[in-house]
Amino acid sequence: MASLPAPIHALIGALHRLPGIGPRSAERIALHLVQADTGAVKELAEAILSARERIRFCELCGALTEHSPCATCTDPRRDASILCVIERAVDILSLEKSATFRGKYHVLGGKISPLNGVQPEDLRIVELETRLGSEPVHELVIALGTDVEGDATGYYLAKRLTRPGLKITRIAHGLPAGTGLDFADELTLSRALEGRREM
Amino acid sequence: MASLPAPIHALIGALHRLPGIGPRSAERIALHLVQADTGAVKELAEAILSARERIRFCELCGALTEHSPCATCTDPRRDASILCVIERAVDILSLEKSATFRGKYHVLGGKISPLNGVQPEDLRIVELETRLGSEPVHELVIALGTDVEGDATGYYLAKRLTRPGLKITRIAHGLPAGTGLDFADELTLSRALEGRREM
Repeated sequence: MASLPAPIHALIGALHRLPGIGPRSAERIALHLVQADTGAVKELAEAILSARERIRFCELCGALTEHSPCATCTDPRRDASILCVIERAVDILSLEKSATFRGKYHVLGGKISPLNGVQPEDLRIVELETRLGSEPVHELVIALGTDVEGDATGYYLAKRLTRPGLKITRIAHGLPAGTGLDFADELTLSRALEGRREM
Repeated sequence: MASLPAPIHALIGALHRLPGIGPRSAERIALHLVQADTGAVKELAEAILSARERIRFCELCGALTEHSPCATCTDPRRDASILCVIERAVDILSLEKSATFRGKYHVLGGKISPLNGVQPEDLRIVELETRLGSEPVHELVIALGTDVEGDATGYYLAKRLTRPGLKITRIAHGLPAGTGLDFADELTLSRALEGRREM
């Protein structure tokens, strides 16, 4: 059987390691690239290298940024009294898209997960404590994932970070928008009931 | 709203131009890349550039290859008396995967499509005629797509390339493997009936 030339094989392998790219997609993209306009291919390779080189984590909040501290941390229009704790840097984007939060962020860098060897000291909790000591934070909003580890990490943080004058809240767990009760699992429904609010 | 740093935006744009990569996938891959191991990122960029630089079209059959003429064209074990005409270089891979064809290939580079401005002279038909004149070809298998343009191109080729001692055939159109009649459209069923064979 005539096989693919080695450079295409290598490219398919490299593409296949990207998230969400299966073997068929990797092959399709590789075959597109080797036949694409040279300028466009160079542009892609440079965009990859340039993004990797220029993007770093903000020293304060842990967000992805070109300049540390990042634009959110240095923005005087953002409410410094509310700090939102998220798991990963990309979670900031999800929250920003919802356009309902005007405070600042703190990326934890994961969640406590003894099974995966992630202990509290592996997360950016000491950095969070430092910020709570130096910044005028009145409310800490915990916005972690709603799985067991996210819940456990939230409770751990709430206990460890309790201090006078600091309100610690958690984002609501409940029914997602635009869906019916018949699509919700039991745990979601149970949490939606527990979190019910007066109308 | 805190937006993404410019290098990530540029990378998302470049990834989004790849086939099959939507805006969400592009964002996911870009955010993965800016946080990935530098070595792996460089490896990907180099694989892209290297594949684009080293891969060319075979001067004889038009396949993707590092060295022209390609391994299939120069393989003495392949049957030079059967030549299979396909639309694109990547179609060779599909046929090779089926492992039923032992002849050689000729990539047309497209199909005749007046609406898209593709005329016979835009395809590698003169090259095909040259090969028919110089190589010991006894059968020309036309394996183009089964849409209107593929059919029309097939008929055009069959008419133009007719010469003494050359059998011109077309791959069968019919029901795909592993499916029921209820999943086949009318045209496929009609072709499957026309192409019926004695058992």
